[in-house]
Amino acid sequence: MIQKIKKILLTKQGKKFFVRDTENDFHTQYGFVKAKELKKKDGSKVKTNTKKELTIFNPSFIDVYKKIKRDAQIIPLKDIGLIIAETGIGKESKVIDAGSGSGALACFLAHLVKEVTTYEIREDFINIVKKNIELLDLKNIKIKKKDIYDGITEKNADLIVLDLPEPWKAIDSAKKALKVGGFLASYSPSVPQTMDFVNSINADKDFVHIKTSEIIEREWEVDGRKVRPKSQGIGHSGLISFCRKI
Amino acid sequence: MIQKIKKILLTKQGKKFFVRDTENDFHTQYGFVKAKELKKKDGSKVKTNTKKELTIFNPSFIDVYKKIKRDAQIIPLKDIGLIIAETGIGKESKVIDAGSGSGALACFLAHLVKEVTTYEIREDFINIVKKNIELLDLKNIKIKKKDIYDGITEKNADLIVLDLPEPWKAIDSAKKALKVGGFLASYSPSVPQTMDFVNSINADKDFVHIKTSEIIEREWEVDGRKVRPKSQGIGHSGLISFCRKI
Amino acid sequence: MIQKIKKILLTKQGKKFFVRDTENDFHTQYGFVKAKELKKKDGSKVKTNTKKELTIFNPSFIDVYKKIKRDAQIIPLKDIGLIIAETGIGKESKVIDAGSGSGALACFLAHLVKEVTTYEIREDFINIVKKNIELLDLKNIKIKKKDIYDGITEKNADLIVLDLPEPWKAIDSAKKALKVGGFLASYSPSVPQTMDFVNSINADKDFVHIKTSEIIEREWEVDGRKVRPKSQGIGHSGLISFCRKI
Amino acid sequence: MIQKIKKILLTKQGKKFFVRDTENDFHTQYGFVKAKELKKKDGSKVKTNTKKELTIFNPSFIDVYKKIKRDAQIIPLKDIGLIIAETGIGKESKVIDAGSGSGALACFLAHLVKEVTTYEIREDFINIVKKNIELLDLKNIKIKKKDIYDGITEKNADLIVLDLPEPWKAIDSAKKALKVGGFLASYSPSVPQTMDFVNSINADKDFVHIKTSEIIEREWEVDGRKVRPKSQGIGHSGLISFCRKI
Repeated sequence: MIQKIKKILLTKQGKKFFVRDTENDFHTQYGFVKAKELKKKDGSKVKTNTKKELTIFNPSFIDVYKKIKRDAQIIPLKDIGLIIAETGIGKESKVIDAGSGSGALACFLAHLVKEVTTYEIREDFINIVKKNIELLDLKNIKIKKKDIYDGITEKNADLIVLDLPEPWKAIDSAKKALKVGGFLASYSPSVPQTMDFVNSINADKDFVHIKTSEIIEREWEVDGRKVRPKSQGIGHSGLISFCRKI
Repeated sequence: MIQKIKKILLTKQGKKFFVRDTENDFHTQYGFVKAKELKKKDGSKVKTNTKKELTIFNPSFIDVYKKIKRDAQIIPLKDIGLIIAETGIGKESKVIDAGSGSGALACFLAHLVKEVTTYEIREDFINIVKKNIELLDLKNIKIKKKDIYDGITEKNADLIVLDLPEPWKAIDSAKKALKVGGFLASYSPSVPQTMDFVNSINADKDFVHIKTSEIIEREWEVDGRKVRPKSQGIGHSGLISFCRKI
Repeated sequence: MIQKIKKILLTKQGKKFFVRDTENDFHTQYGFVKAKELKKKDGSKVKTNTKKELTIFNPSFIDVYKKIKRDAQIIPLKDIGLIIAETGIGKESKVIDAGSGSGALACFLAHLVKEVTTYEIREDFINIVKKNIELLDLKNIKIKKKDIYDGITEKNADLIVLDLPEPWKAIDSAKKALKVGGFLASYSPSVPQTMDFVNSINADKDFVHIKTSEIIEREWEVDGRKVRPKSQGIGHSGLISFCRKI
Repeated sequence: MIQKIKKILLTKQGKKFFVRDTENDFHTQYGFVKAKELKKKDGSKVKTNTKKELTIFNPSFIDVYKKIKRDAQIIPLKDIGLIIAETGIGKESKVIDAGSGSGALACFLAHLVKEVTTYEIREDFINIVKKNIELLDLKNIKIKKKDIYDGITEKNADLIVLDLPEPWKAIDSAKKALKVGGFLASYSPSVPQTMDFVNSINADKDFVHIKTSEIIEREWEVDGRKVRPKSQGIGHSGLISFCRKI
């Protein structure tokens, strides 16, 4: 049984504290907040014993999402955004993903669509996914312990997302599970994987390759006249190939 | 009364044709498809009189979205994706945007969230938004003909998106309409606008600046061993600043 | 016999005209400049018959370089810059390049280093290189009509630059021609070429792979408060792999 | 009196050791190399007492350049490369830079051009520049302890590079020192600086703004089939504005 995040405390500088227990005083680097303060209504100001002011509010989905357990490397938000935007999935969509990893993508999409089925073969990952689903209180994700290369039980999916070492081995499974016009998106960190996947798709008469893109996010510093891309830079995550079943 | 898109015809090369009238033969550059073929069930193969094979299917949201009327410059999908991903809006969210422009963002978000209110002062743009809502068959968008600098009627919004020449003038309006913990996202093509907006946010005790980012999408060519970023490049659209009400 | 560029006429807006004949009036879109005006001294202002003011000056190397004949695709300045900067070649350096193509890289480097030898097998390209050398008035380039895969005559080179379809086939030739500590740089538009080249280098005990980079140049628009990356974007040219002989 | 770098020892993995004293054994993490081995001729293989093989060779300019003392932040090689490439300076060019900082740019350019004059007002920086010039054994750099905003003594320069907090204040000085057709390049980390500089240039009838660019270098990892941009990313350094005197 995991402990839910009940309240967020936010400073003016953007620092967040996550309160899981509202029955006891909550300790921060700025001193502690009394338990009874933690019950104030959403949007109230509370003070620590050192007079630091914090805003208390109920966590949004994104606040909790950023706290999920992540044992496998998870797909960054910028890339999740592209998948949602390019495929136009919505409240009525049926989505499948494989492999689950920590379940980050499955959880994010479940918050937006009708139902998500996530395939994973590793028991340890499945346990993390279960915890993350519980933390986020999601009711519309099914976990399947099965190798997606061996087939997909579901039919008529609007979108299948692959995050697999050999995504070309899942093309046949995906073909049977997708509706006509449905999207197959494959996410790969390395170029040779992307190359082999797209070349396989191009050789398959039942798929169209729509586009392959990488998303570079440049975060900016804005402080008075100091306005410039941040110096640390943002690294590479992966390329995403979008295909469509015909 | 606009004519809805009833069917998509898709070639193996990814070329799409949009069928609005299924009562008459449909003409393409590959010859014509007979009217009775256009009534075949979703996912069928049809042939033109020159034997070109096409797949016929019911349009997805994204197919129709790409056909909306766009008189004002619209925000690209890569940037819409970031807004969705960074704010974690979902099926229960209330969203406000200003100004509507062609309504592209309002329409895209309406497909994902509970309700969208879009503010616009130009009558000509409002007419385009209405047509696009009808084309996409969306029921959860309200259009307000009002200057958002003068106030927002709605309360308790999860997200407000600004695409305005002087977004700093909308900060007070946004503050009153957002729930605590809600997001204010401002999209600006130019750096000085972004600078003035973020500096105003930083001076406002009721907002936290979370991040400002630009998204660069590099599309790749993958064809056998010809695997490389496309040579045409992708241009600049805008910077997006994410803030949060405290 | 080619006609040299004798004078440049430059407008305040940055538009350049190239005068090859100073004995006759020179015609521009802004009217014509009288022949005798074309003999004014370097840095003078001259006027067209329509009173448009132009500055007349002797061409710099870069002015003429930008006018070279280019039948093959030439390597962009941003990439030439990286090659110069990463290898630290200078006035005493001996450089070899293959294939010449239009000779752009050979000409640019000849302006900076002691001597350049350029290998090319196509007669049509060699003729273009000869014209470009003459146009730029360079005295320190040797052209060799020979396949570099079959060997390099020169010894003790400081830098060898490859712009070849199968650069890995030139590794042995380069090894014999480079001094110890000398650089081998290979420029390839496609990733699989780069992959095969670098993997070959890594398997060769006489070379160290220093780095492989791509250079993305973003040009900015600056006009009052309209300050933003240009919307047209800059495309992909190639990846450059830097290696060193040990 | 500084100690020159006499020899480089390079491993197959690309790790470099810098030998300043060849009279004594040289110690590395792989054990030590005997003094008499350090006198072997350029390009020889030497072994440490633990049998690690190293190649010994005389340092190239770039090897020593990478070891210069850098108290101020120095301009990265990718940006130096663009300055060289866009302006086409060469063996006959006269260059001025201000402020010197650690002298990195002045030293790099001195290796390529006829003469460099570098302006700096801080005594501590001037001392670093002197050491770096000595380390690199450059004979064609003059250091001036003077504020460039107050004027430049030299005339007829081919290129002036500014790396200053308020570059627009140096426009008048630069104008008098440049030849007609000569380049003024200004390097600024922040966008508002760039904006104010370029807007000043555009208002000045004696200069043309050619272009403003930023250079993004993406370093790639290439190891078997692991072929992808490196995950750490490359940060922002600055924007470079190129102008020309008319």
